[in-house]
Amino acid sequence: MSTRTTVPFSRETLEQVLKRRFFFAPSFEIYGGVSGLYDYGPPGCAFQANVVDTWRKHFILEEDMLEVDCTMLTPHEVLKTSGHVDKFADWMCRDLKTGEIFRADHLVEEVLEARLKGDKAARGQAVTEEEDEDKKKRKKKVKEIKNIKLDDEVVKEYETVLNQIDGFSGPQLGELITKYNITNPATGGPLEPPVEFNLMFETAIGPSGQLKGYLRPETAQGQFLNFSKLLECNNEKMPFASASIGKSFRNEISPRAGLLRVREFLMAEIEHFVDPENKNHPRFAEVENTKLRFLPKSVQEAGSNELVEKTIGEAVSSGMVDNQTLGYFIARIYHFLLKIGVDPQRLRFRQHLSNEMAHYASDCWDAELHTSYGWIECVGCADRSAYDLSVHAARTNEKLVVRQALPEPVTVEKFEVDIDKKKFGPKFRKDAGAVTKYLEERTQCELEDLAQELSANGKIVVQVKGIEGDVEIGSDLVKIAKVKRTEHVREFTPNVIEPSFGIGRILYSIFEHQFWSRPEDKDRSVLSLPPLVAPTKVLVVPLSSHADLLPLVKKISAVLRKEQIPFKVDDSSASIGKRYARNDELGTPFGITIDFDTAKDGSVTLRERDSTKQVRGSVEDIVRAVKEITYGGVSWAEGTSKLTPFETQSEEA
Amino acid sequence: MSTRTTVPFSRETLEQVLKRRFFFAPSFEIYGGVSGLYDYGPPGCAFQANVVDTWRKHFILEEDMLEVDCTMLTPHEVLKTSGHVDKFADWMCRDLKTGEIFRADHLVEEVLEARLKGDKAARGQAVTEEEDEDKKKRKKKVKEIKNIKLDDEVVKEYETVLNQIDGFSGPQLGELITKYNITNPATGGPLEPPVEFNLMFETAIGPSGQLKGYLRPETAQGQFLNFSKLLECNNEKMPFASASIGKSFRNEISPRAGLLRVREFLMAEIEHFVDPENKNHPRFAEVENTKLRFLPKSVQEAGSNELVEKTIGEAVSSGMVDNQTLGYFIARIYHFLLKIGVDPQRLRFRQHLSNEMAHYASDCWDAELHTSYGWIECVGCADRSAYDLSVHAARTNEKLVVRQALPEPVTVEKFEVDIDKKKFGPKFRKDAGAVTKYLEERTQCELEDLAQELSANGKIVVQVKGIEGDVEIGSDLVKIAKVKRTEHVREFTPNVIEPSFGIGRILYSIFEHQFWSRPEDKDRSVLSLPPLVAPTKVLVVPLSSHADLLPLVKKISAVLRKEQIPFKVDDSSASIGKRYARNDELGTPFGITIDFDTAKDGSVTLRERDSTKQVRGSVEDIVRAVKEITYGGVSWAEGTSKLTPFETQSEEA
Repeated sequence: MSTRTTVPFSRETLEQVLKRRFFFAPSFEIYGGVSGLYDYGPPGCAFQANVVDTWRKHFILEEDMLEVDCTMLTPHEVLKTSGHVDKFADWMCRDLKTGEIFRADHLVEEVLEARLKGDKAARGQAVTEEEDEDKKKRKKKVKEIKNIKLDDEVVKEYETVLNQIDGFSGPQLGELITKYNITNPATGGPLEPPVEFNLMFETAIGPSGQLKGYLRPETAQGQFLNFSKLLECNNEKMPFASASIGKSFRNEISPRAGLLRVREFLMAEIEHFVDPENKNHPRFAEVENTKLRFLPKSVQEAGSNELVEKTIGEAVSSGMVDNQTLGYFIARIYHFLLKIGVDPQRLRFRQHLSNEMAHYASDCWDAELHTSYGWIECVGCADRSAYDLSVHAARTNEKLVVRQALPEPVTVEKFEVDIDKKKFGPKFRKDAGAVTKYLEERTQCELEDLAQELSANGKIVVQVKGIEGDVEIGSDLVKIAKVKRTEHVREFTPNVIEPSFGIGRILYSIFEHQFWSRPEDKDRSVLSLPPLVAPTKVLVVPLSSHADLLPLVKKISAVLRKEQIPFKVDDSSASIGKRYARNDELGTPFGITIDFDTAKDGSVTLRERDSTKQVRGSVEDIVRAVKEITYGGVSWAEGTSKLTPFETQSEEA
Repeated sequence: MSTRTTVPFSRETLEQVLKRRFFFAPSFEIYGGVSGLYDYGPPGCAFQANVVDTWRKHFILEEDMLEVDCTMLTPHEVLKTSGHVDKFADWMCRDLKTGEIFRADHLVEEVLEARLKGDKAARGQAVTEEEDEDKKKRKKKVKEIKNIKLDDEVVKEYETVLNQIDGFSGPQLGELITKYNITNPATGGPLEPPVEFNLMFETAIGPSGQLKGYLRPETAQGQFLNFSKLLECNNEKMPFASASIGKSFRNEISPRAGLLRVREFLMAEIEHFVDPENKNHPRFAEVENTKLRFLPKSVQEAGSNELVEKTIGEAVSSGMVDNQTLGYFIARIYHFLLKIGVDPQRLRFRQHLSNEMAHYASDCWDAELHTSYGWIECVGCADRSAYDLSVHAARTNEKLVVRQALPEPVTVEKFEVDIDKKKFGPKFRKDAGAVTKYLEERTQCELEDLAQELSANGKIVVQVKGIEGDVEIGSDLVKIAKVKRTEHVREFTPNVIEPSFGIGRILYSIFEHQFWSRPEDKDRSVLSLPPLVAPTKVLVVPLSSHADLLPLVKKISAVLRKEQIPFKVDDSSASIGKRYARNDELGTPFGITIDFDTAKDGSVTLRERDSTKQVRGSVEDIVRAVKEITYGGVSWAEGTSKLTPFETQSEEA
């Protein structure tokens, strides 16, 4: 599709088209809108529904995952345990004078980038159109963009900071703000040092106001809390995956960047529960030859952005990607993204640096899509280890474990504590419980020491939390000895591999990847959504509003409805070219034209959106071709090979 | 299905089965749960998804509706305008001593019902099993249930109150509480008078805490706010409908009754925009003969509950149902509910009494489903008139109207005000704007009077808000006269007919309607979900775990996957009867058994859940039958007419 590149991409044009066709629009627009909130109109909603449907088939049906639908309202205690109350936060700076609030890392990024662009201009270097557009927008807000040349060293320093911008702590950001004299860009006024702002929306559940709750920041927690029930649904078999599709929330400090940074968003998350001692995947062989472009940790740490291209099989066997299950999902994510319209040349897998990883993750690879805003994290694929199940189990005293019969019983030797409870009570009275608990919680290593002490001295002397002074326990009260046991069951907490999709970000990236203008007329834009996910598959266009054509429109509509192919009829008086142009913007891949020959011989023409090629055939043959290309994964050439090519000079008039 | 009735329905058994099979479970159960919040497990989630999918096809695709997906977070101002901030509330009573909070109407209902049952028992009258179960549960909470005989008059009074319980205001409930000496049922302690509690969950949008927001109480508002964009999407054609499927929220005071009263729930709502002067529906003829059971306002007001049975055509032509569009949707709702498994004998359409209608509605019919909790409102079908569009337009000064070219221009005579702006400014100075606005806002009637005054006195004297004293305007400054105008366009605010579905309530009612126990063994329960919406369509069961059968399982699985028929394999070692019993509870309509004959001739048996009948045939024929019955609306007898009946004595062992 080399023709697509002849007219340079313009984000402004794309956004105009998407809003005009009501793919999406700011929520509450007639009230002035609320930043970070968007509504999907009919074509956006259908595109989203088709992507979700494809996701469900590609992941849930294909792998027999257990889908759940959990509540968004979540009580405080759950998210306190998961770590979100303490750690799901961004750093913000206030301008006390104006009351404005800035997200600290974005502020530093914005100001330093602006200064670098000013420097570039001062040096007479070319600024890309994209940079220029950004600059124009920002100029309204950032007063200080002046074309000032910077010292070469300063330029280098700024660039280093920008490369690491995701990794700074709040105090570090505060130091940068002071060091580089960063102020409120609009007024030049001073800013308070960064403070943490928790990104969860808070609310009160019930009328008393005493049960604090949040809107969930991810769909994952509901899946973890239901782990035992899900394991039972799966007949106690491991490994298995649950999945969930639903809205999550993030109270962004100052959302910009359109659909890429929003406060309410659709997520699709998989929690794949796996034995920590065996993270191989039974179906890994099916994907191992998938070639991918990686940006591993090591390359980033060396200050480079150069992509490493290899198969996922090589990536796993070399240890770059930790294990087969992680690798399997990375490859499956790749295939999914291509299916729904992502340009493979604008997709990379980037490994998280240790200082940017979410608090629960032990390793993480993001599928990043390139857009005019840069590389955007659209799918996270994290190894959350046993973090979540462990913390919830510890907090609730519910066992969240797998119990597996061992193929053969194993004999283990362990130190065990044997307490004489009859004597313990009278001796320690109210402290008896605490002392018992203390002894039961000792590690094997500590028990070995205590056993020695007991046999050497006939007693042990310990410090127990909550009891003042030493506690002395004689050998008449307790025995500590190594015991042989035969175990028939292995009990373990599974690890979790979590592919997590931000649907809105993916949709927006696909818009950018598939939007282009016809070289013969740059005002005629086309959204080349794959037929599988396009909102409407077919536009039915009668050539004129002549009464003879009306029954034909009805007949074809009935056939399409019966075949459950989403279609629209456009019988307006606009020229046929205009009607197609409108639907090119809507991403409608096929047009069926009804003309006066149709009235004679029943034949219709089928038009393909991207090439504007046409073929002619009977309604049955044309609809069959549409169905095969849309749902059967067949190409246009294949699907229409038995139909007659059709030429017209006036079609696009 | 007369066999279904031989074992009496038990809600307790149903709930046990639904929880054991993880159709749903209390959210955060390992944390003790939060009342009014439930998670759907895999079968519940699939059932819900299938119902939503059926809804989408039945309504959105069939009628070419415009689906949108709007945010749940909603700023204060929008819901202030819609009336929800002021009126979306219930009345609650506090017990200041214990801190407990009661929903006032539920409290009155519960206590009076308990007293009536105590009276019944004291009179030695039979108490139904259902009442008895309720009583047992309540006994823990309601101390005062004693078997005390009441005066006949008191019984009558209580019954009257209970019949009208939905219609009382807060102060009226307060009077009832005092009059009948209603106290905290658990302690007998006194209660504060009822106060209003707004049922919206409140939160703060953004970091400043200054933008107050709520979780939406309905999906409707997003559709109203996008009205102009939707009208444009529809090429300005009327009538048309938008639709939305998504979660809404209601912070219930003290939710009970399981899935019927929850704080977070899935809604599917249609907003059908119609010309207020013509509420006919073009497709009404298609449904007019649908026979329905109605409970109109007039019957309820006469103190009766007797249903009126007639066709929707008769209901509309007699004026009982206000207009064709309302009638059309009532009939379409009926057909939808039957398709997904509602028992028509337990469905009625009840008209709202004027004092129970939502603040925005001008007429409303509920589809109510009968359950062990009584008749439950599951679908509302309201005529919201022009309420919402009008209030949002007034608040935002955005026109939310339809402009239609008149078939022929019409001439209208109107009084018009002609202000001499050049003289107005110097004369009224800072008040000029207010005076102008005053004149522009006069009705035709007021203008007629002013015109007379002006011609009689050469001036008018008026009082203008915000200006002290009289304002005198001479005829040199203003002219008021009747003018003839030719209008080519008619401008109007559409009315809205709103069918609104509570998906969770419908799902629960279907569980009750379709749950039964086999007469030969009442511990073997069956959930007779229609194949179309059943979570899984087919259970594949190898007769034994013999290695010869394994490739056959794989082969059949591949065929089912290719045909996109949701299925499960159960190759556990449980007896075939046990495996089917488990899936009867899961509502799986078909079983395919693989035995040693399959290895020889490729044939398999197909079992039907409700009748346990079996037929035998090739895999292709069996799968075709499953597909036709599940998605083609064909009966078991028809779908399997060409297959061989198969008898076995051991199948259900």
